[in-house]
Amino acid sequence: MNPIPIVRTPAALREKVSQARSTGARIALTPTMGALHRGHLSLVEIAGARAEFTIASVFVNPLQFAPSEDFAAYPRNEAHDVAQLASAGCHCVYAPTVEAIYPAGFSTTINVAGVSAALEGGVRPSHFSGVATVVAKLLIQTNPHVAIFGEKDYQQLLVIRRLAIDLDLSTEVVAAPIVREADGLALSSRNSYLTDQQRQIAPALHRTLVWAAEDLSKGAAVAETEAEGTGRLRDAGFDNVDYFEARDPLDLGRMGPGPLARPARLLAAARLGRTRLIDNLACESPRA
Amino acid sequence: MNPIPIVRTPAALREKVSQARSTGARIALTPTMGALHRGHLSLVEIAGARAEFTIASVFVNPLQFAPSEDFAAYPRNEAHDVAQLASAGCHCVYAPTVEAIYPAGFSTTINVAGVSAALEGGVRPSHFSGVATVVAKLLIQTNPHVAIFGEKDYQQLLVIRRLAIDLDLSTEVVAAPIVREADGLALSSRNSYLTDQQRQIAPALHRTLVWAAEDLSKGAAVAETEAEGTGRLRDAGFDNVDYFEARDPLDLGRMGPGPLARPARLLAAARLGRTRLIDNLACESPRA
Repeated sequence: MNPIPIVRTPAALREKVSQARSTGARIALTPTMGALHRGHLSLVEIAGARAEFTIASVFVNPLQFAPSEDFAAYPRNEAHDVAQLASAGCHCVYAPTVEAIYPAGFSTTINVAGVSAALEGGVRPSHFSGVATVVAKLLIQTNPHVAIFGEKDYQQLLVIRRLAIDLDLSTEVVAAPIVREADGLALSSRNSYLTDQQRQIAPALHRTLVWAAEDLSKGAAVAETEAEGTGRLRDAGFDNVDYFEARDPLDLGRMGPGPLARPARLLAAARLGRTRLIDNLACESPRA
Repeated sequence: MNPIPIVRTPAALREKVSQARSTGARIALTPTMGALHRGHLSLVEIAGARAEFTIASVFVNPLQFAPSEDFAAYPRNEAHDVAQLASAGCHCVYAPTVEAIYPAGFSTTINVAGVSAALEGGVRPSHFSGVATVVAKLLIQTNPHVAIFGEKDYQQLLVIRRLAIDLDLSTEVVAAPIVREADGLALSSRNSYLTDQQRQIAPALHRTLVWAAEDLSKGAAVAETEAEGTGRLRDAGFDNVDYFEARDPLDLGRMGPGPLARPARLLAAARLGRTRLIDNLACESPRA
């Protein structure tokens, strides 16, 4: 495997993009925070089906971490990440420093109202403005034809879709399906924080979402399924359940408390010790 | 004079820009809210010296007006504006509807901290986020080589410079000098609100800034000159003085209360009845 180029500044990135564009290549961007797993690599594979030149960014964005969160501890292993990206068919890695993205004097914040407010936005109040700000910068710096984001961070995907429309960015935002372990646990860089015992409990998150989707598709009431799902997670050993909710798949608005009248998205966040896991699942409504 | 094309949607704008770029033309944008005067036309002339294809946008941006302000009453006369822009050498007018800029579901707000906070930001708390949001959209939609903004709105110019750097926009932000009436009054679309009597008082704003700049350049103390300038405006007949201050020309930070140790920008806002006028002036420090 040949080494792939690593660029570290917006100017060097733009030069690579300009070279690729001059050959007529379509450009894809897959933003990541590194600590790559097969989920990330699936983004690169999807990018490869839609563009001739795929750039993966590797940047742990301080703006999207609250002071109490795991910015400093977040796993970083650039050499391993770059090797994996090269194997997956990536053509260029953009790994800027914090100072290259946020130079002295940086003062701008982007907020996406509405879809940012509930769920993760309730638990992590400044998280999505940090995400929106860095993703806007990465998209403007790269100006790709397509950008690939995983459905694992479903709310983030909706925030970024809204952002791209609202700021008139010419990038198509493409959703990539969640990649899971054999026992159903969604791949996440934060799974590495789990103890062996917590790792045994963790698949209950996906299992309970599957149960709830089936329950709702059979006509169960939303409020009851949400309450029972929360209880099942606690019984399985989760230390706290931040939310377990059926929401509108496009704007994350609440569904009514009764049986689903239309398809929904089930979204959940729960904690095992200090590790916070999130997951989500599409949910059909009962047949009329 | 041939009529110039008027485009009303981002897609139609992009097509015009794409056509012009394909001929190798450099693109200039001069954002305006219409109600054009010679100050605006000077922006178009500066644009013409820096680019081969000049687009003027005409859009009264509701986001930058507070509910109590003059959005509905703001003067609008598109036919007159377009004729003037054509005479000044503009090649294309972008006059979108509010719905074209902010379609249903629009949810994104851009804030520029720091330079937005004082002066106008103190009196009009949501003004600069409205400005930053619309200017980011206009710059992203147009992607011009240069964009021209008048120094009359000096703080706005600094906000936009910061925004363009922070969002990695590839547009050079160019400042245009203030254009004045013979008696010194800075041209403004809001001057049309003035009664004859108010119009007689209005030039005192510039005259007092000129006096203050001279006073400070001779070594007067900032705090005393600011206080006396405010008093002079009241004595001249202004109903209220929102601010009359010497500030750092780049970040609008406060100068010390004593004599200037470095050049400053004098900025003032004062009211005549319900009309609010702003003006500003460069100010040298005393010779060492």
